[in-house]
Amino acid sequence: MTQLESARNNIITDEMRRVSKIEGMDTCTLRDRIASGEIVIPKNTLHKIENICGIGRGLKTKVNANLGASNNAPDMSKEMEKLKIAVEAGADTVMDLSVGKKINDMLNDTLKYSPVPVGTVPLYEVATNILANGDIGDMAWNDIEDVIIRQAEMGVDFFTIHAGVTKEIVEFLKKRERILDVVSRGGSFMVDWISKNGDENPLYTNFDRILEIAKRYDVTLSLGDGMRPGAIKDAGDEAQIQELIVLGRLSKRARDFGVQVMIEGPGHVPINQIKYNVEMEKSICQGAPFYVLGPLVTDIAPGYDHIVGAIGGAIAASYGADFLCYVTPSEHLRIPDGADIKEGVIASRIAAHAADIAKGIKGAQEKDVSLSSARKVRDWKRQFALAIDPEKPTAYRKASSPKSDDVCSMCNEFCPIKRVEESFKR
Amino acid sequence: MTQLESARNNIITDEMRRVSKIEGMDTCTLRDRIASGEIVIPKNTLHKIENICGIGRGLKTKVNANLGASNNAPDMSKEMEKLKIAVEAGADTVMDLSVGKKINDMLNDTLKYSPVPVGTVPLYEVATNILANGDIGDMAWNDIEDVIIRQAEMGVDFFTIHAGVTKEIVEFLKKRERILDVVSRGGSFMVDWISKNGDENPLYTNFDRILEIAKRYDVTLSLGDGMRPGAIKDAGDEAQIQELIVLGRLSKRARDFGVQVMIEGPGHVPINQIKYNVEMEKSICQGAPFYVLGPLVTDIAPGYDHIVGAIGGAIAASYGADFLCYVTPSEHLRIPDGADIKEGVIASRIAAHAADIAKGIKGAQEKDVSLSSARKVRDWKRQFALAIDPEKPTAYRKASSPKSDDVCSMCNEFCPIKRVEESFKR
Repeated sequence: MTQLESARNNIITDEMRRVSKIEGMDTCTLRDRIASGEIVIPKNTLHKIENICGIGRGLKTKVNANLGASNNAPDMSKEMEKLKIAVEAGADTVMDLSVGKKINDMLNDTLKYSPVPVGTVPLYEVATNILANGDIGDMAWNDIEDVIIRQAEMGVDFFTIHAGVTKEIVEFLKKRERILDVVSRGGSFMVDWISKNGDENPLYTNFDRILEIAKRYDVTLSLGDGMRPGAIKDAGDEAQIQELIVLGRLSKRARDFGVQVMIEGPGHVPINQIKYNVEMEKSICQGAPFYVLGPLVTDIAPGYDHIVGAIGGAIAASYGADFLCYVTPSEHLRIPDGADIKEGVIASRIAAHAADIAKGIKGAQEKDVSLSSARKVRDWKRQFALAIDPEKPTAYRKASSPKSDDVCSMCNEFCPIKRVEESFKR
Repeated sequence: MTQLESARNNIITDEMRRVSKIEGMDTCTLRDRIASGEIVIPKNTLHKIENICGIGRGLKTKVNANLGASNNAPDMSKEMEKLKIAVEAGADTVMDLSVGKKINDMLNDTLKYSPVPVGTVPLYEVATNILANGDIGDMAWNDIEDVIIRQAEMGVDFFTIHAGVTKEIVEFLKKRERILDVVSRGGSFMVDWISKNGDENPLYTNFDRILEIAKRYDVTLSLGDGMRPGAIKDAGDEAQIQELIVLGRLSKRARDFGVQVMIEGPGHVPINQIKYNVEMEKSICQGAPFYVLGPLVTDIAPGYDHIVGAIGGAIAASYGADFLCYVTPSEHLRIPDGADIKEGVIASRIAAHAADIAKGIKGAQEKDVSLSSARKVRDWKRQFALAIDPEKPTAYRKASSPKSDDVCSMCNEFCPIKRVEESFKR
């Protein structure tokens, strides 16, 4: 039985108990929200996960790190080092988004070494295979099905499925009203396929078969947003909203079938459109967890998109988004290196945590109180131990020359905290 | 006449014309908003400013960079290099927040070399003088007045004045209900002084005299928030709100007197409290421009507070805050170096720009459209030239090995933009 089916049968699984303990949410509430589809626990029945992870209403906002190589000869030890960096920085899940010949080795190692749930976009492997000898237009349903089955058998915990990219949407795209037509790799494969074959998206037409496979291994489906806007100006257009309607329809089908499901969201979205995006997803997808990619609140900051994404992510999560896909400083520029990955995870975790304070998530503000209490007494070691990343502040302090251990070099003997403390002591 | 008095007399000054041209706001609207106090143009009549800067309702959100040394022997050429970095990164104003013996040389050079408006906290010089031979408690009104007059004569464009820290607030602080009592240097001087003398804040009791000096040189007053919360848990407490009430009263007096005024705001504030903070400031201070320090939406990210501040700043500005004081990665840790300053200015500019898109500021979204149009055709040079910082993305691309000039190493031949372009071309 999937977690969803168990919850519906009033069964509290071991996984639910583990999530309940980590989150401080009582098992009954957790079970009820899994039963209603508002919370998912992405965990393939065949995959051992050290750090189990619940995603959804009332739980801490989670962060995903995208990993994977995009060339044919990745250095596997380097890739596993990146996985380690992402997890140590605090990623709650990772996605292996590799393309290229070594895709299977990568996934195998990622599943083996990752202590957190692992997601994939099966279409990437399908496309890699097809493009080695032909064209996306040649892709048959069997090619897709084979990969989905094999990856499920390997133990993948969640699949991104771009089933919402329909013929109707491709017709809209062909009007060329968007600045950046499609910025989703999975989305672009389906648009290309539909455009070449004139048929309906096979992920859509064979969705029930995907549900059967997902159910067998309790793979959580993450319904992909192939139409996510890639430019602020494209946000909230027909393609985006139309796809969400389709995803809402499919999420209901998945849930009725006993398959856990979450919804992926934009993309490049101006601040003033974030609130309705979250509210709309929650209403049209019956409260399914919302997994946002960013959102990026401006297009003009390549090199700093982790900051752009942290702004959007914090706002989205404060309105109810449940799961943030990290954005690294190398977004739009290159495949991220280790430093980019760390920076990206930290930026997203800041956004998630700030939103959790705003949402009133249990225990979120306690961390701030602890760190600020250490700050009050200028206990640098304790401050840094409590910090979201102990390494960077430790290095910053080490590189500075404060006049005494009791202050920092920003104010030195003019430290306001110390001044008032001494003034009130007299 | 000050800009405010000119506006009230229906005079359109040269400065108004310059701001109007830069912002694309017609001169009459601009003049009316200066007359009502909703917009200020910080410019000392004695100071030549290359890049004039209007701040307030309907104008682009502005960014201030805090500079200055906190030791007695700063390397002046290094400090001027920092000024250059801040301005080149796009700071709209700078504040020289130096303390220590060379405070006057620093201010002199900053005023000479800065192409943007310069602000100070005159209290810092007063405190530096007093603390050289005595105690803050010894500070007399004359000491303060002398410095305010001299700095106004030197050409400082805006003064932070901590006149809202009153005896009543110090009584509240003495209950020790806050985690971090006072985190504002200026605030801590006044708390210390009041605590030692038992008298009312001399900046408050002599506020009319400050207005006379400010009026003579058209120095804009920035009413300082000495009680800004230094911890999320302290946000929105009696001290903070009580001070804002006093500032609202003083801002009315300043405006009635013909002196331009803006209001400084918090501080450490959780996301869910930002909206009311902006709305409250706008109502209680009669629409005066709101100059926020951050806000910082969590306490737990030392080393990454530029990201924390960008989240808070973007949200605050999208609700109507007008002016963001930058936060650098070294906040809470050390005096910022050149790299920190650049990172801080860029992060704040991202926040300001993202908010300007949300607020519908004229022309804001055009930059995004231009960059995204260049992105569509993979014109890297044009993308980077249009970017908020051309340097970093150029370096990132240079350090990567994409398979062709037409893609980036994130997706290589799987580039979705290229795929759909080619698919639709057939």
